[in-house]
Amino acid sequence: MFTSVRTDEDDDGYRRTAERLSELVKEIPGFLGEDSARTPGGLAISVAYFRDLAGIDAWRRDARHRAAKEYGREHWYERYSIHIARVERSHDHARS
Amino acid sequence: MFTSVRTDEDDDGYRRTAERLSELVKEIPGFLGEDSARTPGGLAISVAYFRDLAGIDAWRRDARHRAAKEYGREHWYERYSIHIARVERSHDHARS
Repeated sequence: MFTSVRTDEDDDGYRRTAERLSELVKEIPGFLGEDSARTPGGLAISVAYFRDLAGIDAWRRDARHRAAKEYGREHWYERYSIHIARVERSHDHARS
Repeated sequence: MFTSVRTDEDDDGYRRTAERLSELVKEIPGFLGEDSARTPGGLAISVAYFRDLAGIDAWRRDARHRAAKEYGREHWYERYSIHIARVERSHDHARS
């Protein structure tokens, strides 16, 4: 779970990198999917789902992901929080 | 974690109820905080943090919360997913 507030800096570079990372994470074994939402001018929440902790660790160690995070800390994010969490129960609902 | 896609229905009623629920959840013992983001016309993600499962269960059983969910299933949500997850590691970063 990645919760962040952006700076005003370099929106194009940010978007390109975000799109590239969205493609890269799909290659990680055990990656299940991703949900993202962003309130304009406010908070963004991205949740990446993995089958197990090994997948999360592989993504955390990915060199291209690490480089983007390092650049992002300096340029793109006012603040962010990362929570690693184990899903214990899930429930889906869809209109029929 | 509550991930949802809204219908077009009754935005005022939805907003009033969402604000009321945001106040009510603060009364639940063990409630730690809430993060929300919504992409206009797209996905919304709300994450409520609790100290323990007892707090999550108390909120799940709350009659006013249940009534809002029941109404929401019929009127406000195209679809939603709920994930109950245990936070195992966290990391915060803020610009100095």
